[in-house]
Amino acid sequence: MKCRVCRGPAIIDLPRHNANFCSEHFIQLCLRQTTKAIDDFSMMKKGDRILVAVSGGKDSLAVWDLLSELGFLAEGLYVGLGIGEYSEASQQYAETFARDRGLTLHVVPLRTEYQFDIPTASKATGRVPCSACGTSKRHVFDQFALDNGFDVLVTGHNLDDEVAVLFGNTLRWDIGYLSRQLPVLEARQGFPKKVKPLVRLTEREMAAWCVVRGIDYIVDECPLAAGNRHLAYKDVMNQVEERSPGTKASFYLNFIENMAPLLVDRHESDVSAIGSCSRCGAPTGAEGSDLCAFCRLRDRASQHEPVSVDLLIKKKSRS
Amino acid sequence: MKCRVCRGPAIIDLPRHNANFCSEHFIQLCLRQTTKAIDDFSMMKKGDRILVAVSGGKDSLAVWDLLSELGFLAEGLYVGLGIGEYSEASQQYAETFARDRGLTLHVVPLRTEYQFDIPTASKATGRVPCSACGTSKRHVFDQFALDNGFDVLVTGHNLDDEVAVLFGNTLRWDIGYLSRQLPVLEARQGFPKKVKPLVRLTEREMAAWCVVRGIDYIVDECPLAAGNRHLAYKDVMNQVEERSPGTKASFYLNFIENMAPLLVDRHESDVSAIGSCSRCGAPTGAEGSDLCAFCRLRDRASQHEPVSVDLLIKKKSRS
Repeated sequence: MKCRVCRGPAIIDLPRHNANFCSEHFIQLCLRQTTKAIDDFSMMKKGDRILVAVSGGKDSLAVWDLLSELGFLAEGLYVGLGIGEYSEASQQYAETFARDRGLTLHVVPLRTEYQFDIPTASKATGRVPCSACGTSKRHVFDQFALDNGFDVLVTGHNLDDEVAVLFGNTLRWDIGYLSRQLPVLEARQGFPKKVKPLVRLTEREMAAWCVVRGIDYIVDECPLAAGNRHLAYKDVMNQVEERSPGTKASFYLNFIENMAPLLVDRHESDVSAIGSCSRCGAPTGAEGSDLCAFCRLRDRASQHEPVSVDLLIKKKSRS
Repeated sequence: MKCRVCRGPAIIDLPRHNANFCSEHFIQLCLRQTTKAIDDFSMMKKGDRILVAVSGGKDSLAVWDLLSELGFLAEGLYVGLGIGEYSEASQQYAETFARDRGLTLHVVPLRTEYQFDIPTASKATGRVPCSACGTSKRHVFDQFALDNGFDVLVTGHNLDDEVAVLFGNTLRWDIGYLSRQLPVLEARQGFPKKVKPLVRLTEREMAAWCVVRGIDYIVDECPLAAGNRHLAYKDVMNQVEERSPGTKASFYLNFIENMAPLLVDRHESDVSAIGSCSRCGAPTGAEGSDLCAFCRLRDRASQHEPVSVDLLIKKKSRS
């Protein structure tokens, strides 16, 4: 197996590019794909104040590393979700990465700052953990970016993530969700600009990036996410990809090019229907409450006695 | 396992309806779902002259049987594709079905009427057999329906067929194809009205219908279709369905309800861009030829010496 560029020994085969790469030229490929995503979708420019949403997993550490390599100045924010040992280990990976590279990492623990954690929120509201977690992370990242004057919030969503979400939204033909599934969401009332520089790179490529670059990250999936629908969709799309390499990339990129423009009106009308939370000022949907989804979640979860992650997992495996 | 309606012994479980049915109430369910499709989408009315595209497989014989049970007067058309023993056996099933029920079956053999068959067309043009077959069947069915004054052409596409095609078109976000994927295509210049009354019923349900109603049909897949992409898509969507019963139906029906209306403009502009074949008068796309796709296929295939289906399969399995 030889590198397509230099004919030296390759370390990775990429069927959708119909090519193999050595570590040096694999690194160049990843930098090029990231640059292309940033440029094609006008994600950010040098000198912007950039905040990366950091989980301690491969994608968020890889995107932070890639941006640093490309000369962008980015700080990180880790949100402590309180998911037992999994959260403790994740935080250590994030802190070690930042310290070794002289990067600034902010940490916001939900329990200390907001008096709840994800296992407790899930139990208190009866919602699946991933749903409570998504609401919490979105709120804390958005708020932190706005309060601290960042120009853009970066997340590590890779091609596989976007493809799985797009597949789920397509299965339901949920036009509202489809209209918002873009690599860039512009800043607007109560929301920072949000961008996804890894949309042209896969999960497997980001794992390889971390290996090649010597980045230690938390390898385990979140114990509360195991068996969720998102993972099942990834599995299905990987089967399609194996049969026809390049399908995942064309599914996502053709959506952005062919379909998203037809949904712009829906996106605009969605955006204009938003109000403000009477407590924290964050945007609210039209759910008939003057509190945002996060404040409502927090109200219920912070009044509940703390629930351990083990208890939640045991209950899940019994049902 | 008990019938949801009468509590008698059930013969089939239908997870998406979260119910089991005895043969009598299964038959009623199928008749009801067919009626609902016909009514919801204004497919046809009693007294219309109806032509069913008959292959000898379970779906086309089931839809013909269902329409007859519901009091519609329908004749059948079988197109002889020249796919060796597979075609011979298919034709016998179609003829036996029609004869036993006193129904009228027309037969158009491609070789006799148009001087080619599918294996030869595939070899002569280098196209995959399913593509040459689709072009040929569409042309012959459309032409026969128009020439003989039928009001509507019925095909036996079931929910699984529509879901697999929709999934394929969605993977590419092919807006033109998506805009045409409707349960009813109205008659227009050179095309008869075309309808799919089985869109609310699955492949498995149509197999069960044939068993319950004592309909013999060709069980084998076409030997030239084995391993095609369409079958792979069905496989993937069945995995999703197994995890979440009802997903296939909601994928298709939500597309029709939520997305198809947003694509109407595309469909209209597509329709208006059509010309007429200078030889047969059939509609042509904007492919830079004055002949339609069928006449071009026929020109090349009829000049080629006949190719046996076995030769084509051997060649395929070697590659």
